[in-house]
Amino acid sequence: MAVEFTVLKTASDSPARLGLLKTPHGVIETPVFMPVGTQATVKTLTPLELEEIGADIILSNTYHLYLRPGSDLIKEAGGLHQFMNWQGSILTDSGGFQVFSLGKLRKISEEGVEFRSHLDGSKHFITPEKSVEIQMDLGSDIAMVFDECAPYPADYSYVKKSTELTYRWAERCKARHNREDQALFGIVQGGVFPDLRRQSAAQLVDLDFPGYGIGGLSVGEPKPLMYEMLEEIMPIMPQDKPRYLMGVGSPDCLVEAVLRGVDMFDCVWPTRIARHGTVMTRRGHLTVRNQTFARDFMPIEEDCSCYACQNFSRAYIRHLFKANEILGLRLATIHNLTFLARLMADVREAIRQDRMQQFRDQFFAEYAG
Amino acid sequence: MAVEFTVLKTASDSPARLGLLKTPHGVIETPVFMPVGTQATVKTLTPLELEEIGADIILSNTYHLYLRPGSDLIKEAGGLHQFMNWQGSILTDSGGFQVFSLGKLRKISEEGVEFRSHLDGSKHFITPEKSVEIQMDLGSDIAMVFDECAPYPADYSYVKKSTELTYRWAERCKARHNREDQALFGIVQGGVFPDLRRQSAAQLVDLDFPGYGIGGLSVGEPKPLMYEMLEEIMPIMPQDKPRYLMGVGSPDCLVEAVLRGVDMFDCVWPTRIARHGTVMTRRGHLTVRNQTFARDFMPIEEDCSCYACQNFSRAYIRHLFKANEILGLRLATIHNLTFLARLMADVREAIRQDRMQQFRDQFFAEYAG
Repeated sequence: MAVEFTVLKTASDSPARLGLLKTPHGVIETPVFMPVGTQATVKTLTPLELEEIGADIILSNTYHLYLRPGSDLIKEAGGLHQFMNWQGSILTDSGGFQVFSLGKLRKISEEGVEFRSHLDGSKHFITPEKSVEIQMDLGSDIAMVFDECAPYPADYSYVKKSTELTYRWAERCKARHNREDQALFGIVQGGVFPDLRRQSAAQLVDLDFPGYGIGGLSVGEPKPLMYEMLEEIMPIMPQDKPRYLMGVGSPDCLVEAVLRGVDMFDCVWPTRIARHGTVMTRRGHLTVRNQTFARDFMPIEEDCSCYACQNFSRAYIRHLFKANEILGLRLATIHNLTFLARLMADVREAIRQDRMQQFRDQFFAEYAG
Repeated sequence: MAVEFTVLKTASDSPARLGLLKTPHGVIETPVFMPVGTQATVKTLTPLELEEIGADIILSNTYHLYLRPGSDLIKEAGGLHQFMNWQGSILTDSGGFQVFSLGKLRKISEEGVEFRSHLDGSKHFITPEKSVEIQMDLGSDIAMVFDECAPYPADYSYVKKSTELTYRWAERCKARHNREDQALFGIVQGGVFPDLRRQSAAQLVDLDFPGYGIGGLSVGEPKPLMYEMLEEIMPIMPQDKPRYLMGVGSPDCLVEAVLRGVDMFDCVWPTRIARHGTVMTRRGHLTVRNQTFARDFMPIEEDCSCYACQNFSRAYIRHLFKANEILGLRLATIHNLTFLARLMADVREAIRQDRMQQFRDQFFAEYAG
């Protein structure tokens, strides 16, 4: 088995659970947030800094790496871990989400997706098999099946057809996958339609994947609808397999989704807002580049142990942003990822002590979004 | 005394010397190259990384900090060291060079220079006294007098008048300076005219500064002319005071200038070319972003101990540059500054062993520029 998942504890009053995910590159405590390293680097950071932040697993993007530098080159380098010198675990997405986001530049058929590169306009055709082959070349610890992520809003018949296509593609991905040191996760789709979600979950579970992504959420639908979909599928999902809510990374959603039984998350948002000068705190976001902080010589968060908070003031970080200095992007990124790593550690501790509901209430009493 | 300088050894066959420069923030072995942190940050790096690179002293720019975030704000933060959290030494320039570089945006008079900010067009007037006051607010270990840096080429009469103005301004700077934990260095000007250089040196030495900048070189003149000017003034410069060749940072010039008796250097060039994907090696520059290195899985330099060379390949760094990833800028910057720190350490060792001429010959046998 490329990955082994052990549930250490399930909360008594919710599906929240504490787990251990073992990959060829280490053991990851869940629930976990995975920082995103789209182009074989978590933007602005070194692997060493990721370790210091406490990241055990990162996500990287198949679509981007396939186009640049090319999965053949990465294979030649000895795989993605070796290429980017990251000793921890890596999950790669399938490229599906990126390809579908290309809009007019892509054309979907039963066989796969034809698209034009956003870099040079060159034409490519990705099939489920091809996506798996690329991910096997990259050598990630966890690969994802090639799925169609239906947009929101989309009508029932479109989502139904799309979800069925995703299922057939999942079968084809599974048939093609043969790398023993890599796990291939299925992806549950179904938009915001409870019956399609349940159907997709049941079908995917039938294929017996070692883990399951939950895709097509956090794509514009109201948050309560996302939580409802999680509640619909959770009873169908196997207890002994990890559940990964794709593309979710705002603190409130993380807490709510953990309560509903999710184990893994990823999102570009925390690192993206960091690069725009917004930092995360227990009380909500803080736009550190604002004039308000020009003479604020306090750290971003007083009780934060990150390198940014231990060494620099809001005034200095604001100056760096105003002066377009890269160190500002670095410090804000380090802080936001540390904030999320710490939030997830607190969440795990709350589950361990079986007080996750209480943790959630305390969290929202303070958190302003 | 804010700084103490001790010559440990002078070469037997050249003016090259090994020294120790003591400031309130540490002891610096000379000859030394000072990385430039224009806006209170050495671009892309943390203070921790600068320490790891072996930097004991950095340069920061008065003109930039005066305009943004403002020297009053930095004073309020507890000074520049505190603001940017740098425990090592800091030398600030006077702002003169930057102001004169503004071209049409500035007007020089006996009293000082009127100029418009490159940021917002606001009008400012900097006098020698004002420059010293700003630098006292910044609290650098070494401040520089406000000088006029004559352009190259410039005719004799212009440079003569300019050099005399620089002398009168140096007197005014000295009269205004009263911070005991900060040293104020004079600056020798005189363009490429031997008699003006000698006159400037003699006049500045009469004012008895604790150290001397050599300004107005490396501004476009041929390198042999720069070396000639150094040879002209060196017999006039006091043996027991540090000599700082301003704005010089290419490896060949460093080696040649050390041989002619220079102790300190600074330059933005090594970090600037790094951010454009060019790295320094013993054999000369290497444009790591070039196609040639796409599948080159060797480090930038095999025997280099820097974080970039110890952990990443040329292929990976090239990928980072092609993909516009900040980590590329960071790694190239770390390498170039490590390269220069190492070159200067080698230079010091050569002087210690009294084989600096031999070191220079070996250096140029390998170095292609």
